[in-house]
Amino acid sequence: MTLRVGIIGAGPSGMAQLRAFESARKLGAEIPEIMCFEKQPDWGGQWNYTWRTGLDEFGEPVHSSMYRHLWSNGPKECLEFADYTFDEHFGQPISSFPPRAVLFDYIQARVAKSDLRRYVRFNTAARWVDYNEQMQEFTLTVEDLATQTTETHVFDKIVVATGHFSTPNVPAFEGIETFPGPVRHAHDFRGAENLAGQDLLLIGSSYSAEDIGMQAHKMGAKSITFSYRTAPMGFGWPESVEERPLVSRFDGRTAHFADGTSKDFDAVILCTGYKHKYPFLPDTLSLKSRNVLYPGNLYKGVVWQGNTSLFYLGAQDQYYTFNMFDVQAWFARDVMLGRTALPSFEAREADVRDWLQRFAALSTHDDEADFQTAYLKDLMSHTDYPAFDLDAVAVLFKQWMKDKEEDILGYRDRIHRSVMTGTMAVNHHTRWLNAMDDSLERYLHG
Amino acid sequence: MTLRVGIIGAGPSGMAQLRAFESARKLGAEIPEIMCFEKQPDWGGQWNYTWRTGLDEFGEPVHSSMYRHLWSNGPKECLEFADYTFDEHFGQPISSFPPRAVLFDYIQARVAKSDLRRYVRFNTAARWVDYNEQMQEFTLTVEDLATQTTETHVFDKIVVATGHFSTPNVPAFEGIETFPGPVRHAHDFRGAENLAGQDLLLIGSSYSAEDIGMQAHKMGAKSITFSYRTAPMGFGWPESVEERPLVSRFDGRTAHFADGTSKDFDAVILCTGYKHKYPFLPDTLSLKSRNVLYPGNLYKGVVWQGNTSLFYLGAQDQYYTFNMFDVQAWFARDVMLGRTALPSFEAREADVRDWLQRFAALSTHDDEADFQTAYLKDLMSHTDYPAFDLDAVAVLFKQWMKDKEEDILGYRDRIHRSVMTGTMAVNHHTRWLNAMDDSLERYLHG
Ligand SMILES: Cc1cc2nc3c(=O)[nH]c(=O)nc-3n(C[C@H](O)[C@H](O)[C@H](O)COP(=O)(O)OP(=O)(O)OC[C@H]3O[C@@H](n4cnc5c(N)ncnc54)[C@H](O)[C@@H]3O)c2cc1C
Ligand SMILES: Cc1cc2nc3c(=O)[nH]c(=O)nc-3n(C[C@H](O)[C@H](O)[C@H](O)COP(=O)(O)OP(=O)(O)OC[C@H]3O[C@@H](n4cnc5c(N)ncnc54)[C@H](O)[C@@H]3O)c2cc1C
Ligand SMILES: NC(=O)c1ccc[n+]([C@@H]2O[C@H](COP(=O)([O-])OP(=O)(O)OC[C@H]3O[C@@H](n4cnc5c(N)ncnc54)[C@H](OP(=O)(O)O)[C@@H]3O)[C@@H](O)[C@H]2O)c1
Ligand SMILES: NC(=O)c1ccc[n+]([C@@H]2O[C@H](COP(=O)([O-])OP(=O)(O)OC[C@H]3O[C@@H](n4cnc5c(N)ncnc54)[C@H](OP(=O)(O)O)[C@@H]3O)[C@@H](O)[C@H]2O)c1
Repeated sequence: MTLRVGIIGAGPSGMAQLRAFESARKLGAEIPEIMCFEKQPDWGGQWNYTWRTGLDEFGEPVHSSMYRHLWSNGPKECLEFADYTFDEHFGQPISSFPPRAVLFDYIQARVAKSDLRRYVRFNTAARWVDYNEQMQEFTLTVEDLATQTTETHVFDKIVVATGHFSTPNVPAFEGIETFPGPVRHAHDFRGAENLAGQDLLLIGSSYSAEDIGMQAHKMGAKSITFSYRTAPMGFGWPESVEERPLVSRFDGRTAHFADGTSKDFDAVILCTGYKHKYPFLPDTLSLKSRNVLYPGNLYKGVVWQGNTSLFYLGAQDQYYTFNMFDVQAWFARDVMLGRTALPSFEAREADVRDWLQRFAALSTHDDEADFQTAYLKDLMSHTDYPAFDLDAVAVLFKQWMKDKEEDILGYRDRIHRSVMTGTMAVNHHTRWLNAMDDSLERYLHG
Repeated sequence: MTLRVGIIGAGPSGMAQLRAFESARKLGAEIPEIMCFEKQPDWGGQWNYTWRTGLDEFGEPVHSSMYRHLWSNGPKECLEFADYTFDEHFGQPISSFPPRAVLFDYIQARVAKSDLRRYVRFNTAARWVDYNEQMQEFTLTVEDLATQTTETHVFDKIVVATGHFSTPNVPAFEGIETFPGPVRHAHDFRGAENLAGQDLLLIGSSYSAEDIGMQAHKMGAKSITFSYRTAPMGFGWPESVEERPLVSRFDGRTAHFADGTSKDFDAVILCTGYKHKYPFLPDTLSLKSRNVLYPGNLYKGVVWQGNTSLFYLGAQDQYYTFNMFDVQAWFARDVMLGRTALPSFEAREADVRDWLQRFAALSTHDDEADFQTAYLKDLMSHTDYPAFDLDAVAVLFKQWMKDKEEDILGYRDRIHRSVMTGTMAVNHHTRWLNAMDDSLERYLHG
């Protein structure tokens, strides 16, 4: 009988899984019966922007955490597909940090070209997965959100590709329940235009805090205060920006900080990260992890230790993104097709343990980039994904981090060279700080 | 074998179901094994206020749509429990329109007194229900949100008491995706303090629009514009308030209305109602309905036509609330215990059809109040719920609607007489318009 594969989610990871099978099919392989379920009306995952917040038009949690003026925060040269380059897509060199719409266009085109949309059931949410030990098969119940009908499908393999930057982690702070202004999580931030003239408090000290803070600066916020739990970001901030330790409590619109200082604010945004959440999985199949570079219980970061018919894509914290999802999808495909044999449970445990030990020893951001590079090299060696110079990408990551240290408002104006094609990016017609129209049109045609 | 009953949700409806069984137990009846699952850390449903919006601390959709300064919008005399009066609870007469915290206190005390908390598993969300035809039993899988463990329980009867004013209905409008200010649904509104001085647009023309508009007025909004789809509310609004037909499109911060007029706004709140949503139920068991006084497929508004072991409480649009949930819970209990025999499918269909016909013929709000009164009378006649003068409550509803017509900012200062005890409410120490502290303390002790 033909293998039956169910993919949950059609973001970049789910799309990579479709592409991985398509690539094998083109080379003459027999591929499984595939069904992919995507709760949104379109694919692209986080890159499929919505103005909605909280719950969507079907009453499902809104997936995307992106905002109107979001641009890539890493160089596009670090995430380029090895089998579909920026040159191939755009036919001309572009800048290194494109806005959301431009990257969305890029990831869509690759899968649309091969008509992979036919595999995807849109507006369809995974509701519940059961595994039948005896039959060695999964039942996956999904709901067609538009018609409100539920259906149950049977699969031999399931791929979880639902992302983990969508369910906000929202800590409580004393007195926050009576803060008079808006309090929301970064997940529900859509644009900083209405923060002009305001005193803004951002809790958290990672990518979201940094970028939403700089968005607010760009849109004319009066002051921006970052509040950190562990350590300040320490970038060369503009004058109206400062970092303080963690909020200890709120009193009306006043925030009190751990260092005894206080300040009045108009709005609070909690940039406190996201949770892994798989409400459609029984606990035996569900990954429990913080946002880290190497979650446990996944062999090669992909195969669920408790049931090797279950696969997770993109479950790691991410330096690498699109190309990492590709390599993971290629690997998952080869395991499913029996091209790659899995070692024993113990050998897999030992492999995971080894990586977790290496992970625990990391201390700098440079170390982290090297760690994920090493992980990807290892994974790539088990697949036929087109080889590319991963060490060169690691160098790019380090340069990018240096650029941010030097100029937090200007690093997106720098340009980098593709490791896939050797093409040098070109300067964009507008500096990030001055760009107010982030559309594909404006980006490409000025 | 003892009957096994699973109750999903411990809001006023779920609490009523617990109380209904307790009442039978006290009278000497054998009662089933009962488990109640509540996803929030406390019971009270909508009345359990949270500052959170969107997703909660466990990444579940935030349940409550209530806001800091919410007061009862109907007279408390219309919702009084027949078996636990306001006099019994407060020991003194109080005003007719108490703030949220006061009603929360009232509904909690009744069930806390009988130690009904022991039946409730808090922080536990229903994930998936299956019905086994052969065994005639349900399996209900729940997740303990704090430990992230899933469990499956078997029940003979299931009571759905998860409310239907929690999943926002969020229509799209052309250009709304680039409105520069905050756009949110009433469900995520928590307080109007930060709307002072702002031009506010509220879409919708029902209870939420009316009350959030008046909250914003109370807190000093510069102007309030209601935009209606069907008909204006037509109350005697304060000067800064107006009603316009539906928004046809947004252009930046400008809203264009169907009558060709336009106006600039700082913020938009969509008061566009709620959806029935039961993501834990297969479609064969799931109620599909708009917010109406008589959803179809429920015999006596309670028993699921497709499977009479399944019960819904509070599924109707509500004039009556707490006491209606009580009567429904008493009825559901008696059906489960076999005290009340169900007629044939056809007879039940005919009964539902009859009510739907009466419902379709309603034209005024007074008609609607009479309709729900008649429904409740019918239902009560099948139970031993303590009798009370329903016609007197209908008169109260009509007086209340008249009071609103006369004074939309002052109707909450009026007082009414209890139909249970004959006690006349007392004037509150502070007019609603001037009350800024809505705590139980301040309410009771001035
Ligand atoms: C604010 C923000 C900015 C980012 N910026 C960048 C950037 O600049 N560059 C970069 O490389 N990366 C960025 N990322 C990282 C981003 O996570 C990845 O680029 C990528 O989107 C991850 O792909 P994914 O497919 O694994 O997950 P997602 O993109 O999250 O896609 C998951 C998909 O699963 C679907 N889904 C979820 N639950 C269900 C269900 N129950 N049933 C059916 N479908 C379901 C969702 O609708 C979604 O389409 C950013 C992330 C965030 C949050
Ligand atoms: C803004 C607003 C104001 C209102 N004001 C008034 C008023 O002034 N007077 C009045 O009489 N009525 C008012 N109501 C009406 C209100 O609906 C009722 O008073 C009452 O709360 C309904 O009770 P319920 O138990 O049916 O539903 P809810 O109160 O909604 O309770 C449902 C419960 O189910 C739980 N739940 C949901 N899903 C799950 C799941 N999957 N697993 C486990 N648990 C789950 C929820 O956490 C919640 O505790 C108001 C409603 C709203 C939205
Ligand atoms: N393209 C873009 O411009 C862009 C913009 C935003 C986000 N992103 C992407 O989005 C993803 C998520 O980034 P993120 O910044 O949201 O999450 P993150 O990197 O996981 O960081 C979470 C932050 O929240 C803090 N935090 C967590 N719990 C806290 C608590 N209880 N109190 C105080 N602080 C707490 C953490 O502090 P500690 O350090 O103390 O743990 C950390 O600073 C990343 O992949 C990122 O690249 C991209
Ligand atoms: N205690 C309090 O003070 C208080 C405050 C708020 C709410 N509540 C309670 O909360 C419950 C819900 O009330 P609600 O007002 O939120 O919901 P509701 O009574 O169901 O009303 C929904 C409103 O949304 C409008 N609407 C729906 N879809 C629309 C669309 N596509 N475009 C424009 N308008 C649209 C409807 O207009 P149409 O008329 O055209 O259909 C209607 O006016 C009620 O029980 C109420 O008593 C109580």
